Amino acid sequence: MKNLVSMKELSIEQIMDILKQAQAFREGEQSKLKQKYTVSNLFFEPSTRTKMSFEMAVRKLHLNVLPFEAGFSSTLKGETLYDTVKVLESIGVDAIVIRHEQNNFFDDLIEKVKPVIINGGDGTGNHPTQSLLDLLTIQQEFGTFEGKEISIVGDIAHSRVARSNADALIKLGAKVNFVCPPEWQAEFDAINYIDEVIESSDVMMMLRVQHERHDGKAYLTTESYHAAYGLTVDREKRMKDSAIIMHPGPFNRDIEIASELIEVDRSRIFKQVENGVFIRMAVIEMILKGRE
Amino acid sequence: MKNLVSMKELSIEQIMDILKQAQAFREGEQSKLKQKYTVSNLFFEPSTRTKMSFEMAVRKLHLNVLPFEAGFSSTLKGETLYDTVKVLESIGVDAIVIRHEQNNFFDDLIEKVKPVIINGGDGTGNHPTQSLLDLLTIQQEFGTFEGKEISIVGDIAHSRVARSNADALIKLGAKVNFVCPPEWQAEFDAINYIDEVIESSDVMMMLRVQHERHDGKAYLTTESYHAAYGLTVDREKRMKDSAIIMHPGPFNRDIEIASELIEVDRSRIFKQVENGVFIRMAVIEMILKGRE
Amino acid sequence: MKNLVSMKELSIEQIMDILKQAQAFREGEQSKLKQKYTVSNLFFEPSTRTKMSFEMAVRKLHLNVLPFEAGFSSTLKGETLYDTVKVLESIGVDAIVIRHEQNNFFDDLIEKVKPVIINGGDGTGNHPTQSLLDLLTIQQEFGTFEGKEISIVGDIAHSRVARSNADALIKLGAKVNFVCPPEWQAEFDAINYIDEVIESSDVMMMLRVQHERHDGKAYLTTESYHAAYGLTVDREKRMKDSAIIMHPGPFNRDIEIASELIEVDRSRIFKQVENGVFIRMAVIEMILKGRE
Repeated sequence: MKNLVSMKELSIEQIMDILKQAQAFREGEQSKLKQKYTVSNLFFEPSTRTKMSFEMAVRKLHLNVLPFEAGFSSTLKGETLYDTVKVLESIGVDAIVIRHEQNNFFDDLIEKVKPVIINGGDGTGNHPTQSLLDLLTIQQEFGTFEGKEISIVGDIAHSRVARSNADALIKLGAKVNFVCPPEWQAEFDAINYIDEVIESSDVMMMLRVQHERHDGKAYLTTESYHAAYGLTVDREKRMKDSAIIMHPGPFNRDIEIASELIEVDRSRIFKQVENGVFIRMAVIEMILKGRE
Repeated sequence: MKNLVSMKELSIEQIMDILKQAQAFREGEQSKLKQKYTVSNLFFEPSTRTKMSFEMAVRKLHLNVLPFEAGFSSTLKGETLYDTVKVLESIGVDAIVIRHEQNNFFDDLIEKVKPVIINGGDGTGNHPTQSLLDLLTIQQEFGTFEGKEISIVGDIAHSRVARSNADALIKLGAKVNFVCPPEWQAEFDAINYIDEVIESSDVMMMLRVQHERHDGKAYLTTESYHAAYGLTVDREKRMKDSAIIMHPGPFNRDIEIASELIEVDRSRIFKQVENGVFIRMAVIEMILKGRE
Repeated sequence: MKNLVSMKELSIEQIMDILKQAQAFREGEQSKLKQKYTVSNLFFEPSTRTKMSFEMAVRKLHLNVLPFEAGFSSTLKGETLYDTVKVLESIGVDAIVIRHEQNNFFDDLIEKVKPVIINGGDGTGNHPTQSLLDLLTIQQEFGTFEGKEISIVGDIAHSRVARSNADALIKLGAKVNFVCPPEWQAEFDAINYIDEVIESSDVMMMLRVQHERHDGKAYLTTESYHAAYGLTVDREKRMKDSAIIMHPGPFNRDIEIASELIEVDRSRIFKQVENGVFIRMAVIEMILKGRE
């Protein structure tokens, strides 16, 4: 693994190695990197959890962070992403985490620049570290993916999480249901009624309604979306005893999930955030270690 | 002390302990914290001195800082403050300094989240570390608060500094005068003429006219405000020999204070900024030490 | 050298000392500073390469960085640059790098504040660290400046790079050509045709067309500028075998330089960025060392 841009390129063995290393970091293992590398986080879209999670991961690995402010960079003077990355390469940055609104932005970079490229989310495309932290959370819960039923509910068409997770979960033997309104179905075979899956699912993975990607076209009002596709207090009662709730965040309270359910016993929403730091430590360490 | 959100909750003994520890840091004492904690500064309102002062304090304590950009965070996607703080908790942040436009924002957080919460300024409410650094500056000057006459002049109604300082100074035995135009008097008993207090005061504490909180309603022009309520060059000459000038900053030159007086001998304006770093070191260390 | 604000104040000997120290850092020499100073980068104009280059330089010198966000500071509340710098002085900052849109902003600071002031670019005035990194790049190439012909091409009137470089190169014995449209000639004696210099120059230093400084007045279209003043693929073929291409960046591909030439063998564009880190290390170390 020289870079990490999508889940598609990872073998099952590589996925399992990352999860194992992340779990080891979670249990207190220290970094084995020999050099004090420099990492920079280039986030061209707003983010709290992913960016801060990477910032924390880099600090826990005892590496340097070189700060980058997208809203105050030469991008405003028209510099291309490739040229910005070449500048960071020349300055001596070893690894670059990038979030960018353009799908597959990394096609212009991979094999052309020296720093490691880690995809922190590309448009409606991929979000591999989110996918890996979701996998770790599921593995911690059930010990296996084989035969587990995971229902991904909501804004499938606009969700890079849905795409990344679908690839990986199916490869690992899970059954994946996509649940969404017909308008958001995209290329997936989707189920249009959440009540069809609520009782059989091991994981209810609720997606954020991404208002900012809908260009003002609201298909449903907030209330009717919650009633038709949300995880309501009533629906939660119908879930299996062992089933868990997940959400990649940031969540819209009382739209895709009832506010009361965010911190309910079966919710793993903040545990996902915890796992994110360890997954990112594992990914960064494994890639940089491969270069030593 | 588990958090620091307002001066009201501090006993006289606790205030004196903080001032003593801050003075010790000022004289070169080193941090006694055993762990390398992580601190994050969540500033949702513009700030130079308070934010950078906390950043410096954290570095001088040899702790980690996790950067947060309010203008580029998930807050833009509608995330609540509580949810953002829970994310930082899950990422592993130990202490969070928050400046927020909403009064008492901390009511939603205290007792509900694990990280230490330090109030870096809430709307027109509190600003306890500013108050503590003001107290340290007065203590360094006079050795005591008992019987000292402190005149707080200006925008009392919109000032979290006025509120925080009033509570503390009165508790410590000082005499506090509030001087302001009748329109800015709020719940305080105020004096409407600065000339009534200029000769008797030990401290002239000038407040910033907060244009940004007045919604465009200017009660007085700049010149007439300076003449009626400002510390003019003429008024400074009438101050007692031992009296000092203070200002929490940022100051408007020639509005609440004549430009020539900013760095005059009796001005403690930049010494207040120096003290701010040591106060914040003391507050952060004492709270984190209490959790060890 | 107590500060660095323009090339004019540097003697030939001082310039040579900086280049020598930068080259030593490039070859792996470590910092000899005895204290862990704190440096802050105050960038009031967008920048990627200069700001991140200084950030990297400070880290490589094992110093502290105190982050400053111009777009979220008290400057928004009307604080002057002098007052902001005095606040940083009081907080304990030892050296401040400033980029500011106002020419000669440093006249209000030098001799009045304690921290070291390093000019990171003032309006259309100076950009001394850029100049020094350009000199290092030329020295690495030719071993000398004496008799070398350097053609600076483009937006002379708006370029602080042109001004800074002109002073230094002429002082060091080089021949400098300014090539630009008559409208951008400013106070320089300029040549109006690039083809007059393309075959004789040792260095073709292409400047960025600074759309953001032209207030919407475009003298030429993009295509006609490229044809008349740009380094085209055809012109590059007419350069001397030993001649090199330089550009301070960020570059406009296909305006001042053909996209295909950015990474051609004779281009030193990204080597300039590499050198920038070492030049900044040298400048910061030499000034702070002088204060020890």
